[in-house]
Amino acid sequence: MSRFEPRNPDFESHVRGAFAAQGLMGNFGAELTEVAPGRIVIEQDFHERLLQQHGGLHGGAIAALLDTACGFSAVTLVAAGKGITTIEFKTNFLAAGLGERFRFVAEVLKPGRTIMVSEGRAFAAGADKDRLISTMTATMMVIDI
Amino acid sequence: MSRFEPRNPDFESHVRGAFAAQGLMGNFGAELTEVAPGRIVIEQDFHERLLQQHGGLHGGAIAALLDTACGFSAVTLVAAGKGITTIEFKTNFLAAGLGERFRFVAEVLKPGRTIMVSEGRAFAAGADKDRLISTMTATMMVIDI
Amino acid sequence: MSRFEPRNPDFESHVRGAFAAQGLMGNFGAELTEVAPGRIVIEQDFHERLLQQHGGLHGGAIAALLDTACGFSAVTLVAAGKGITTIEFKTNFLAAGLGERFRFVAEVLKPGRTIMVSEGRAFAAGADKDRLISTMTATMMVIDI
Amino acid sequence: MSRFEPRNPDFESHVRGAFAAQGLMGNFGAELTEVAPGRIVIEQDFHERLLQQHGGLHGGAIAALLDTACGFSAVTLVAAGKGITTIEFKTNFLAAGLGERFRFVAEVLKPGRTIMVSEGRAFAAGADKDRLISTMTATMMVIDI
Repeated sequence: MSRFEPRNPDFESHVRGAFAAQGLMGNFGAELTEVAPGRIVIEQDFHERLLQQHGGLHGGAIAALLDTACGFSAVTLVAAGKGITTIEFKTNFLAAGLGERFRFVAEVLKPGRTIMVSEGRAFAAGADKDRLISTMTATMMVIDI
Repeated sequence: MSRFEPRNPDFESHVRGAFAAQGLMGNFGAELTEVAPGRIVIEQDFHERLLQQHGGLHGGAIAALLDTACGFSAVTLVAAGKGITTIEFKTNFLAAGLGERFRFVAEVLKPGRTIMVSEGRAFAAGADKDRLISTMTATMMVIDI
Repeated sequence: MSRFEPRNPDFESHVRGAFAAQGLMGNFGAELTEVAPGRIVIEQDFHERLLQQHGGLHGGAIAALLDTACGFSAVTLVAAGKGITTIEFKTNFLAAGLGERFRFVAEVLKPGRTIMVSEGRAFAAGADKDRLISTMTATMMVIDI
Repeated sequence: MSRFEPRNPDFESHVRGAFAAQGLMGNFGAELTEVAPGRIVIEQDFHERLLQQHGGLHGGAIAALLDTACGFSAVTLVAAGKGITTIEFKTNFLAAGLGERFRFVAEVLKPGRTIMVSEGRAFAAGADKDRLISTMTATMMVIDI
């Protein structure tokens, strides 16, 4: 059960609609696999269109997926008629982006009325256990939409 | 004239080849428009495949382009047989990613033998002057390739 | 001449009073040597009370001085009755904190009504030229005080 | 029990000696209350010498204490004869630094041979439960000392 109480009862359909409207996520082929209050999971298959020159997932693609997960984790907690804009984020790359499928998990750390802070983790999915490849801390501002 | 002396006389062809080998940059349609010692410029047209749900350039796409520019700015200064891996980066978003064309300019701030630090600026190109939309500081490690 | 027009004509006395009221800056012995619209310079002598175990300026002391410079650079641009609170900052350490005197220079990059972003640079003062030892990007929110 | 196996059996005395040799921590009056493989806790009383102008703990003091905790968490895992230098860190400020006593907890996230990444959390100690006031992600490089 979530630590958070959503302000918008329709948060899930709002998030799913907004995710589907993102050209970048459609381009990547990313899938939104979990939408809970204060928590988002996105999954992504390994694909040539997301790679850097050494054959690994591009750091920028990892960051884009983590950013999307962090941003929507905040969106789950805003009131109806509100959205968020990302002020800044920081990403650390801990291991190579190699694998067949990746998971991007974001959770809200601070659900402020004006400022939201979320943390994201990127994993390369494994048969036995997932391998942590990247982290993000993202700061968002709540805006009228 | 550059403040930096490249260690690899073939740095430009090395960078151009590596950029062309990036699936993500090909996917985006990004163009590498300047390769100088310690400095990279990438340009990108506005396109639906790079957008978020409000019709602006996705922050993750901006970060991916800045990351690529920062990474290659470091690559211009490594010796032959060396490359870089990105340890981390941090991005601030200052203005909406709206415009017809964008420029991503990166310059090396610290050309260390082990650690390189670069700064990037993203601009929405304008008729009169460019508008700063985002900044990045990126930390890279020099590796054998 | 500054790029910025201050909203509070008494910005300088406001900043000087607030700086003098900071216990931490008094503890350090830091000096506020320049207050201009959107720009702050703080100077600090090398002193044992600011060091890490290897005899260099502690990274945390460098960050505290950069943070103070960034914060007050934003304060110079807010209206009377307003102040700022720091949301986050990011610091890179480029060279050892060795020298007799240090300068911490901050300039506002984005003077938003709600969000301000400033960049700071720390220098070890030299006879001929200053040496860049650290950088900061700081994000502040404007608040009522 | 720790996830980590220390490479230096004398890690604790090494860390305690290095902490005691930091002029800044002595100045603050900080106490090193836990030293375990990959984990450090520092405690600090509220004191006027650490404050900003509004009477709260200065963000720079919070960052310095988190930085110290993150740095030593990495030191617990290096081999004898090795130390660390901080490459960069990022701090988010989530709540005001008000309280009588504060705890700064750091844990290593990635214990690399060359690069270490740690995460820190700052808490205002409460009668019932601690309140999270700040987070840090720090990147360190292993060096010979």
